[in-house]
Amino acid sequence: MIETRLTRAFALDHPVISAPMARAAGGKLAAAVTRAGGLGLIGGAYCDAEWIEAQFGEAGNEAVGCGLITWALADRPGVLEQVLARKPRAIFLSFGNPAQFAGQIAEAGVPLICQVQTLRDARQAADLGAAVIVAQGAEAGGHGESRATMTLVPEAADMLARAHPGTLLVAAGGIADGRGLAAALMLGADGVLMGSRLWASDEALVSTAMQAAAVRAGGDDTIRSTVMDVARRLNWPGRYTCRVLKNAFTDRWHGRVDALLAAAETVAPAWVAGWEAGDPVASNTFVGEAAGLIDAVRPAGEIVQGIVAEAEVLLGGGWRRV
Amino acid sequence: MIETRLTRAFALDHPVISAPMARAAGGKLAAAVTRAGGLGLIGGAYCDAEWIEAQFGEAGNEAVGCGLITWALADRPGVLEQVLARKPRAIFLSFGNPAQFAGQIAEAGVPLICQVQTLRDARQAADLGAAVIVAQGAEAGGHGESRATMTLVPEAADMLARAHPGTLLVAAGGIADGRGLAAALMLGADGVLMGSRLWASDEALVSTAMQAAAVRAGGDDTIRSTVMDVARRLNWPGRYTCRVLKNAFTDRWHGRVDALLAAAETVAPAWVAGWEAGDPVASNTFVGEAAGLIDAVRPAGEIVQGIVAEAEVLLGGGWRRV
Repeated sequence: MIETRLTRAFALDHPVISAPMARAAGGKLAAAVTRAGGLGLIGGAYCDAEWIEAQFGEAGNEAVGCGLITWALADRPGVLEQVLARKPRAIFLSFGNPAQFAGQIAEAGVPLICQVQTLRDARQAADLGAAVIVAQGAEAGGHGESRATMTLVPEAADMLARAHPGTLLVAAGGIADGRGLAAALMLGADGVLMGSRLWASDEALVSTAMQAAAVRAGGDDTIRSTVMDVARRLNWPGRYTCRVLKNAFTDRWHGRVDALLAAAETVAPAWVAGWEAGDPVASNTFVGEAAGLIDAVRPAGEIVQGIVAEAEVLLGGGWRRV
Repeated sequence: MIETRLTRAFALDHPVISAPMARAAGGKLAAAVTRAGGLGLIGGAYCDAEWIEAQFGEAGNEAVGCGLITWALADRPGVLEQVLARKPRAIFLSFGNPAQFAGQIAEAGVPLICQVQTLRDARQAADLGAAVIVAQGAEAGGHGESRATMTLVPEAADMLARAHPGTLLVAAGGIADGRGLAAALMLGADGVLMGSRLWASDEALVSTAMQAAAVRAGGDDTIRSTVMDVARRLNWPGRYTCRVLKNAFTDRWHGRVDALLAAAETVAPAWVAGWEAGDPVASNTFVGEAAGLIDAVRPAGEIVQGIVAEAEVLLGGGWRRV
């Protein structure tokens, strides 16, 4: 057992939160993580009300939370009310200014978890009264920015210690095993948020072809780009990029957004069709540098418990190698 | 005392190596780090034979090593013989293929430390017989690439454990305090290499104006770019970028290399003049995201000892926060 301020605040067995990965983190994954002693989050992401409802159904009676993309929620603010009616264990907001939603979430008595990618946004989220700040480094899969976990976490820890000592801090980005969990605790985090490692789980809503591609890949094989957002015609704010496995699509279009836009009429539908089919060649596999630390797809509960067991050994002195 | 394979192999008191930062890491800094119980390296970088000689003189009788930029050494191979004649504690190579130099270094009986930025290069360096692999993340100041310390270190540790169990591993990038050192050990490193934190030391050959700018800055205020290399007309291979503090120069030219080249006749000399003057406005301050973890310029020996003391507390259970 690794006890931290996070485990105490949320009555968890383990200081582990599952990332609310768009489409991949459904109710089954969230429930499995909660059942294993962590905090599971449904990937509400682009705020598809029907999908979110269905996934809360899949989660059954397990206490799970829900993540939403802040700029997408701003376009569909009614979704927040719908999610709050489900009495989620937490609301997780990322990628945008959470100011307009913090009050409604607080009134509902639901803890607000804000994921941030810069120290500036960490400060803003803490000022807004977030219960937990998730400091996400650029090594993460999917959307993010440029700061690294290794520096953003301790810098945020110092800021919180000075200005908001009661606000909890969680590290995200590049954490996929007990080494990452133990390192995050050393950096000043109260726990970790894991995406890629749980994306490669039995319960994730991910094609086996994409999972197999990620298991084969190493961290060198990923790239941050915007071409997959251009192909999907998503209006991501310019500051965010998305880490995926490199493939022929990124080789062809990365750094050539204008050309991609010019060819969008044929290229975009092909990418979207590949995405719907879970095809890692015709579309992109959303996974982080931690791909290099993942060697098999396993049940989410086993993953959580294995990581915690490994971290316990390290924290007990097992980091000493002969 | 934190004992690791690195401290045993090099008979150090602390598992800390100072980065051989070009121009900044002279003999005084290297000697101070060695005297404090770490391993100090002179920043031989672009292979200016005269400067390197002078800095070995400044180091006196302390056992220091020397770092060289591999692609620069390939243009001036005679410098390696000169440095080896100084009987350095180690030769540190980074940014290029070390294959053509490994034999000569081994014949001289000098340990080879290879800094790498990808798993692929880590494997190559280990295959060549490097005694130590330094896995450098993109959060580092100065030149580097895109992988993060948080994932590159454990992935390299796994590779070495399988293929080269006797090769040591050192983490670099974003490490500036005891939290970073303790985290690196958890990730599987045998020690750390620190640049920015020791750049902001009394002994570093850095202007007080640049050091003051870095102390004021946070990690959000840095950027990876190539414009400072374009301005200096240095032939850096395209895969490497350089992290500096953002300023009016990077605001103006980042992402506009063609325009910078077109304006080079006037812009480049102004940047170089600013650089020679140590001016953080007219040129750029080479520091990493760890700028956000540095609050004062201090003596290098105090820095090393303070970091180790902080890490010892964390490793002894001090990571538990109430």
